[in-house]
Formats: sequence, C-alpha cells, structure tokens
Amino acid sequence: MVLEKINAPGDIKKIEPSEYPVLSHEIRQFLIGKISKTGGHLASNLGVVELTMAIHLAFDLPKDKIIWDVGHQSYTHKILTGRKTGFDELRKFGGMSGFPKRRESDSDAFDTGHSSTSISAGLGYVHAREITKEDYHVVSIIGDGALTGGMALEALNNASDLKSNFIIVLNDNNMSISQNVGGISNMLNEVRTDEKYNRFKENVKGSLEQLPGNLGKRAVKKIQLTKSHIKQFFIPGMNFEDMGITYLGPIDGHNIEKMTKAFQIAKRVKHGVLVHVITQKGKGYKYAEKNPGNYHGVSPFNIKTGKPLAKNTGKSFTSVFSDTIVEMGNADPYVATITAAMPTGTGLSDFAKIYPDRFFDVGIAEEHAVTFAAGLAAGGLKPYVAIYSSFLQRAYDQILHDVCIQKLPVVLCVDRAGLVGADGETHQGIFDLSYLSCIPNMSIMAPKNGKELHDMLWFAKDLPIPIAIRYPRGNAKLCEGECTAPIVYGKSEMLRPKNTIAIMAVGHCVEPALNVSDQLAKEGIPVTVVNARFVKPLDKEMINHLVPNHAILVTWEENVRSGGFGEAVLDYVNSLEFPIRVLNVSLPDDYVEHGNVEVLRKETRIDQETVAELIRKEYKTIH
Amino acid sequence: MVLEKINAPGDIKKIEPSEYPVLSHEIRQFLIGKISKTGGHLASNLGVVELTMAIHLAFDLPKDKIIWDVGHQSYTHKILTGRKTGFDELRKFGGMSGFPKRRESDSDAFDTGHSSTSISAGLGYVHAREITKEDYHVVSIIGDGALTGGMALEALNNASDLKSNFIIVLNDNNMSISQNVGGISNMLNEVRTDEKYNRFKENVKGSLEQLPGNLGKRAVKKIQLTKSHIKQFFIPGMNFEDMGITYLGPIDGHNIEKMTKAFQIAKRVKHGVLVHVITQKGKGYKYAEKNPGNYHGVSPFNIKTGKPLAKNTGKSFTSVFSDTIVEMGNADPYVATITAAMPTGTGLSDFAKIYPDRFFDVGIAEEHAVTFAAGLAAGGLKPYVAIYSSFLQRAYDQILHDVCIQKLPVVLCVDRAGLVGADGETHQGIFDLSYLSCIPNMSIMAPKNGKELHDMLWFAKDLPIPIAIRYPRGNAKLCEGECTAPIVYGKSEMLRPKNTIAIMAVGHCVEPALNVSDQLAKEGIPVTVVNARFVKPLDKEMINHLVPNHAILVTWEENVRSGGFGEAVLDYVNSLEFPIRVLNVSLPDDYVEHGNVEVLRKETRIDQETVAELIRKEYKTIH
Repeated sequence: MVLEKINAPGDIKKIEPSEYPVLSHEIRQFLIGKISKTGGHLASNLGVVELTMAIHLAFDLPKDKIIWDVGHQSYTHKILTGRKTGFDELRKFGGMSGFPKRRESDSDAFDTGHSSTSISAGLGYVHAREITKEDYHVVSIIGDGALTGGMALEALNNASDLKSNFIIVLNDNNMSISQNVGGISNMLNEVRTDEKYNRFKENVKGSLEQLPGNLGKRAVKKIQLTKSHIKQFFIPGMNFEDMGITYLGPIDGHNIEKMTKAFQIAKRVKHGVLVHVITQKGKGYKYAEKNPGNYHGVSPFNIKTGKPLAKNTGKSFTSVFSDTIVEMGNADPYVATITAAMPTGTGLSDFAKIYPDRFFDVGIAEEHAVTFAAGLAAGGLKPYVAIYSSFLQRAYDQILHDVCIQKLPVVLCVDRAGLVGADGETHQGIFDLSYLSCIPNMSIMAPKNGKELHDMLWFAKDLPIPIAIRYPRGNAKLCEGECTAPIVYGKSEMLRPKNTIAIMAVGHCVEPALNVSDQLAKEGIPVTVVNARFVKPLDKEMINHLVPNHAILVTWEENVRSGGFGEAVLDYVNSLEFPIRVLNVSLPDDYVEHGNVEVLRKETRIDQETVAELIRKEYKTIH
Repeated sequence: MVLEKINAPGDIKKIEPSEYPVLSHEIRQFLIGKISKTGGHLASNLGVVELTMAIHLAFDLPKDKIIWDVGHQSYTHKILTGRKTGFDELRKFGGMSGFPKRRESDSDAFDTGHSSTSISAGLGYVHAREITKEDYHVVSIIGDGALTGGMALEALNNASDLKSNFIIVLNDNNMSISQNVGGISNMLNEVRTDEKYNRFKENVKGSLEQLPGNLGKRAVKKIQLTKSHIKQFFIPGMNFEDMGITYLGPIDGHNIEKMTKAFQIAKRVKHGVLVHVITQKGKGYKYAEKNPGNYHGVSPFNIKTGKPLAKNTGKSFTSVFSDTIVEMGNADPYVATITAAMPTGTGLSDFAKIYPDRFFDVGIAEEHAVTFAAGLAAGGLKPYVAIYSSFLQRAYDQILHDVCIQKLPVVLCVDRAGLVGADGETHQGIFDLSYLSCIPNMSIMAPKNGKELHDMLWFAKDLPIPIAIRYPRGNAKLCEGECTAPIVYGKSEMLRPKNTIAIMAVGHCVEPALNVSDQLAKEGIPVTVVNARFVKPLDKEMINHLVPNHAILVTWEENVRSGGFGEAVLDYVNSLEFPIRVLNVSLPDDYVEHGNVEVLRKETRIDQETVAELIRKEYKTIH
C-alpha cells in the first residue's frame, strides 16, 4: 500500500512518480470505503484526487496556504496531511469535520463551508504576506459553480491590480451540486468544447502565415503586439485576462504531471494567475460518475449497488414542500419558484419539470435570488424562494432592503432551519429567527409537522406581504389529529390546555413539547402546550390568556437565544407586569459543531429530556 | 420656461426636440437651485439629465418599468413625473424622498437605495411580464461603480439566457462616490480611451483587406463567421457579449438624439441588451464637474462659491476615526484598513495617502471586503473594515461565516450607526446591534463620544477576537471629564451613581441620558447613568450591582428593539428573579423614513424629552 507511506504533510513528495497512479487509486478506494460507512461528500472528493495530489506535490504544506472553496472536497487534502485515521469518525460529534478547519490542522489555512469565499480569503493572505514580508504561496481552489457567486466575482475584480503571485485554481467540473446555469457556465462550456474555436484559431493563424511575403507575418505580429485584446483570441480565458488575471489552461485535472507543471509556471507569475483544470465529478466510482448530483452528499451506502443502507422512512419537510409547491403551481399560474443552485436539495425539481417557465435556478447567487424574487413580486407574481437557512444569511440585505421596505409578497421557504447535523458550524440553521425577527414588515412561521407546512405554504399564497416559513431537515410527521385548526395570521394554536406550566414551542419543537407534557402528566405536573406557529408577529392574545393561570411560561425553539422567539415572548410578558416566570429554551451563544442532531440537541441542552428535567425542577420551586 | 410644461409623465414628449437643450439647461438650474437650499445628491443628478430625458422620450411611463440603481440619481426622473414641487421639501420629514419610492409615484417601479440591485429587480419584472402576458419594457440603469457589486454580476450571469427584451443602461461616469477600482473599471477605461485598440482594429482590418487576391477577404470572413469570439475583437463590450448580452455603445450620455435612437434599437433585441452610456458626473456646475466626489451628497451651499452655507462645527465621529486610524497605522505596521468604495465617507482618505500599501479600496463589494479582511487577519495583520451600518448588512454571512467561526481578529468599524436622517429607510443604521448580537464570538462596543471612540479603536488593536465598534453620523464631543476610565473588555462605565432609577445607555444615547439625569435631579428624581460601552458581552456584574438599589432599569439605544441591547439586558435581569422593572427605550419595529435626525428621534420616541417624561411617570408609580 502506497497510502501507508502517507502520514504527514510532504510525505507525498517522498514517493516515486510511478507510484502516483497507485496512490490515487488507493485514495479513491479509501474514500469510497470510508464514506460508504460514515456518509459524507463523495462525488466532489472523487473528482479532485489528482488535483489535490498535484497541489501537494507542487506546494509546501503547511507553509503554503491552500484554501478550498466550500471545502467539502478537502478529503484527499485531509488524507495527505496526516488525517487518515479521522475518517472513521468523519462528521461525527467530536470527530473530524467534513470541511477544512484551522483548529484541526496547520495545513488548513482557512475555514470554509459556504460557497465563493476562497478568492477573497486568498487575496487577504497574499496582501498579508507582502506586508509581513513572509514567503509562501497562496492557492485558492474554486469550482466553476462557486464562480457564479457574486463575492467570487467581487474578489476577482479586486485581484486585478495585484503585483504579487496569487494562484487561483478553477476546478471545472461543470457542476454545482446540480448542473450549473448562466452566462459564466456557458462561457466555460464553450471554452471546454468549442472545436469551432480551436479550428478557427488554427485557421486564422494558418491563413495569415501562408500569405505571400511578409504580409502574413506582419499581421500576426500586429496581432501579438496589441496584447491586451488579442490575447483573448488565442487563449480561451478572455474574461479572466480582461480582468488582469493571467490564464493557464484548460488542463486535464486527472493528469498529475501536467498539473504540477502548470503550477510551477503559475508560481512565477507576478500577479493573479488562474489555472483552469477540468475534472470529472465522481471519477472512479461508476454510480457517482453517472449521477454525480445524487452522490454529492451521501448517507452510508452499499458499495456494490450504490444504494443507501438505511431505507428512507417517512416524508421529509422538504418533500412536503416539494409536493405542495407543485399543487400550488397547478392552482395558481402566478406562483413562481426560485432556487440558488439547489433544485434537488430544496425540493424544487418536480416543480421545475412541470412548470419550467415559472421555475428559476439562478446559480449560486442567494443575493440575486432574493432581489430577483422581489422583482417578480413587483411584477405581480407570487414567488417562493427556497434557500437553506444558513445560506439565506447571504441575502440578508436583500431581504431587509429589497423585499421588506416595499412589503413585497415574497415567500422565503427557509429549509434546513435548526440543527442540520453532520455539516457542522457553517451549515447549522440556527440564526434565522434572530436575523429575520428584527426586520420590519417581516412575518415568520414555523410548522410543527408536514401537514402544517402544507397549510402554511397555501396560507402564504394569498398573504400580500413578505413572509418566511422555516422548517428543518429531516422527517415531518404528517398529521396527528392536532393539526386541523386552520392557519390564522399571527395566531398560535392551543394543543394541550392545562395549567401551572405552559410551553410555547416553535416548529419542530412542538412534538417534543407534547411528549414532555404527556410524560410529566404521569408525574402529576400539568403542562400546557401551545404551538407558536407565528414567531412574528407574536400572538399576544394567547400570552394574555396563558398568564393568569400559569406560573411558568417556557419558550422552546431551535435557534440562538439572542433575538429569538424566547426573548420576544419575555419582552412582551415583561410589559404585562404580571408575576409569571419566563424560561427560555434555546441554543447557547455559540456555534454548534458537526454531529448527529439528537446528540447535538442533548449537548446544547434543548432536547426533550433536558426540558422535562428543567420543568420538573421549576415545578418543585413553586410547589 | 419649458420646464413649466412638464407636469406629468409623458409631458416631455409634447415639447419640440429643439427645446430639449433648453429643458436640460432649465432642469440643471432647477436642481442646482433647489439642492443648494435643501441639500441632497447633486453631482450624480447633474450627470444624468439628458440620459433621463432620453429614457422618458423613448419609453412610456408609468407603463414601462424604469429601475434606478442606488436611486440617488432619480431627481430628473422625479421632475419629469410631476414631482417638481416636492423639491422644496426634499428629504425632509414628511417631504419627498431622495430615492425612488413606489408609494410616491406609479412611475417609480422599484425602491432602491443600496447599490447593485437594479438588474436583479429588472430581471424579475421581465420574467413576470412574460408570465402575466403584459406588455411593457423594463429598463435598469446601473452605474459602472455599482457593476462591481457581486449581486449585479450574479444578475448579469442569470440574464444571459433570457429570451425576451431586457434593457440595461450602463451609466458610465468612471466614478462610484469616489474613483472606481478594480478590473471591471480598468476594462471600461480601456474601452473608453483605448486609441491603441481603435488603431489596432483598423490596422488589422486594413492589413487583411489589402492582401492580394481573396486571401484577405477570406481571413476577414473567417473572423466574422466565428461570431462568438471574434465579436469581442470589434466591439468593445466583450465581457457582456461573452455573457450572452448584446452590447450597444459607447454612446454620448449627453446627446439625447443618439441615446433615444439607441434605446429604439435596444427595444427590438429579443434578449438582454446593455446600452453603454458615457456621462459626466456633475455636468453643468463647474465646482461639481471639477470635484464630483465632493458634490456627491451636499448640504445647503452658496451657488456662486460652491461652499456650504453652514460652517462645519465640531469634529465628527468619522473624523475621530480618521485621525485615530492614522495614529495606529504609524504605531503598528500590521494595521490595515479596508473600504468598500467609500474612502472619503468612512474617513480613510488620510490613511490611504500615508500608508497606501496597507489601505484597500475593494470597490462596491462589502461581501468581499469582510472576507478579504478575514484573510488579512489569518495572514497576521490587524484589519479595520470601515463600512456604514446599513451597507454592512450586505456582508452578514461573511461576518458570521468567515470572521466569527474562526474568531479572526477583524475590527468592524460600523459608521453611520443609528438614525442617519435625510437618506431615509434604506440608509438608517438601526439593525446592526440586532444582527451582530446573535452572532457567536462577536463583541460589540459603542463609544459615548469622540475620545471613547479613539480609546476603543486602540483597545481593539490588541484584542485577538472579532469586534465591532458602532458609531453614529454627526458630531462627537471629545471629552467631558467622564471619559477617562480605560476601556476594559466587557465592562461598562458608571457615570452618575445614584439610586431608584438607572439608565444603561448605548453609545451616543449616553449624552442625552446624562442630560435626563441632570434635569430630573432638579425635580428630585435620582437617576443613575451607566455608559454600556459593551453591548456584547453584557456587563452582568454592573447589572448585579444596580439591581439591589434600583426599582427601574431603563435601557436606551438607537437600534430596533428585537435582538437589541434592551432585550439582552431584560433576558439577564429575568434570570436574576429580582423585582426590578426593565424599560426598553429603542426604535419601534418599523422602517424610519427620511428627515432631520432630531425630528426622527422625537417621532420614534427615543429622544431626551420623551425618556425624561417616561421616567417621571414611572417614578410616580413607585412613589
């Protein structure tokens, strides 16, 4: 096993070039084997095995700064920097992260998770290097999908006047998580495949050179002299060149020798240089090669069949959204949907197939997605924008400035709200209640189960104002008899009218709240349960109703405390000047690392048992 | 007066073309006259008089949708749509806004204020038009500066596969508020001025055509055939064409006839079309032509001298920042500063002159600015990012995801925090305490005066974690004897130790709090005043100290209530189970329109008199 020789940064430089193909094969088998057991990001990692090896051969780690955009493709990098053993506990609580983490290794130069950040961070490192007069290379590796994110373009624009070396590797697999869209993608496609272009290049040169006398040579020379514009003629990186960045490529991203050569050339450039590398997502595992989208993030699977080990039981909130939005698209020709490069993840694929004219995949571009939706709404449509909670952070100003000031009826479908688990800090959707609640004219709902999500989506359709519906990753019960009350604007739902202690729970915290009530009822502790439904506006009437016959009001949400539901309830209760205690169950003021969601809930003390115990203890103090 | 004939949308179409020059002259004189009295945006509006007239001649308002990016250049549009009389109350409370407002006129298709949103919104309108089968044109007018904002590029990318007409007017004046920076600007500069390019174009065509026989013609034909790449050769809009958007231009932005012709051509394009118009910022007023940056936003001025009527008395917070950052740059070679296209507005011009290698103007690119700063910090520097509070909303995910997870020591200098006045809803800096407080690992300070801002900036220098310092627009007292206590992490400052009622005030609310205490002392009401200094972390020790001998704790901040300082204090006080009332003085859950800041404070009930009266009333209830 060549892989056995790889135990620390730089070890790859000690093996023979003839062993590279063996090593890349072993790394792929290692990745497939490990990920089939733990789950994780597969296709993107299989695509960059040789690219990562070439980078580790051409650069010195940890001295040189390698920044992986998004970061889910850093597994080979982790293997090559002494973290092989971490893969047994990959993405488990206390185990190795699935993303680069500075706290994990000196070879991880910058933490990533969201898309399109690596050029900005890399450019920061480059300028810091010049000022501190240190000596290292900076390499930002960015996918072609991530290049459509606005901040990557802002960074490229800013990199244009650089006077020192900065290497950007464009890892071009023609995919985001799904297929790429838009002009940048089209341009790269042309570069990759345009035989016409290649033929033309040869033809023009040929035509000119075959001319009699010096005429042809003169023309060629003239063309070569006017460098800035003519270069585009012969080098397919015209846009990058226009922006003051040298272009090298395209290079076969599975040919280590060619890539290391290109990196050596790139190192000598005295400004920004883009190395365009073509890779195949999923390479080396037939199922992933065929369906890279399906093997982007996987749960444990059978290597032979490519099928997941656990049967997917039950229906997820996302799939309830998926079905409902198709229903609504049928009922109302003005319902439109928007995704930022995640048609499958957000559950919009079916809608996209049935109503292609009203479905918009804008690419990895959350900012544009939201303001575009505002434009659709201004034009008379009813846009539903489906974005994961943590990615919606990218569109904060657009929600505040473009949607809510004008009170445009945009529906934000905030998927993956709450703890998401294995992806960790960067992906937990635990801030949305806070960052949305402080925005005027915004309303926020959270469904307790699938049926309620369905009803809320329909309810939102005729609401002439901005509204966010936040729902979690994972399964949604469909209906348990308690969900029949129709949605009324600003109104919560009384589920268990009791006394002494009341819980107002948000969204998927309602189910455990009901369990706590049932459990404590057996112990003689009466616990009222209210489904908040609306986090904003607050149902003050319900609180007024609860206050006289309850001594304790517990709020329960899967969101950080500051600016969340609990603080809003407390603020209102405080204004009542009534002696009721408010206890706020919410996430602490901290990032939550990766791990199983149930484990994380226990760790952060928002799980069912902790809340039951809290209430038991409080009940004693009042009795 | 031709201007007298202009009283409603479409009136401009009734005047003779021969009167256009008269009208444009009269509009300029009108603008200069009115703005010299009220203040407002001058240079940008003088630059687009003819452009706006041409748009109103070529399109039908309010049927066609005209979207002004940023929107501060919409004054001529307001004149041409029946709002001449509004200019007497321009930007005053209850008067006409300085930006497009749908509530103000049917001819304002989309509210703007922040940069780079117009292409997204316009594209939304275009798709809505197709789905609703309506018939109108959509025109987004965007400046060359705004084009460096990531979301504009996201939108251009998304506009590439459009199958129906969408007109983007690039208003190219080679300026943001200050000079533009970066690759996009360089490219446009080249297009504008590149004689070499023009000569080359002729030369190549000439060389080829002069070739004997058919050889030259063949070469030219070959070049013309390979449209997609060669077009860039002859048309200076290569980047736009690459992105699937037809390019028309450049066109003289002061020639109405040429522009209306171009718009008529643009209307016939069946996809996205960019009309590149060159305008001169400040045109028609000599001082503004010479120094467009200084005449971007002006206070009332003397038309003859160009000088402001009111003398600037006192030193602003921004200018304290400006002086202090220069001091620190001198003391510490690793201090770096970043602005997003506002070196003058944020007070970084002096630093830029003295330490050009450590000063970074990244263009209108707040997202990149913050992650770039994170990269500088990771590379060992101490970056100070100066961004206005409302624009920092653009970088929300970057603060949360790139700075704070890694606890990188980036200092966010949040200028224009609190009410900013005349710019209104889009520019009020009244959300930052909320959207920053819920971010883990973030610390937040607010200085009560200039000396404290100075001390906080120095204090932040050696703090190894992320920190935000928020300070308002307007003058900063320098020192009043109470500001000598050194800054201690997480500690507030006791200014008036009394009893019964305590005010904890944030930043510039400390001064009115002291006034209230003085005033009420005369009436026999003892009011303690604490300068919070830190909004996060909360000084719990101080609250513990206040609780035993105070019956009422008043919090006072210029920020919305949800997620702000007051709710954090209440949350902590609630955990103490001590019978003290908390009263939260903060802004209501609403956008605050334009107007004089003192007027706005009264309207929103956070002014000195309202708070004094509130305390008086509460004092009676406890005595």
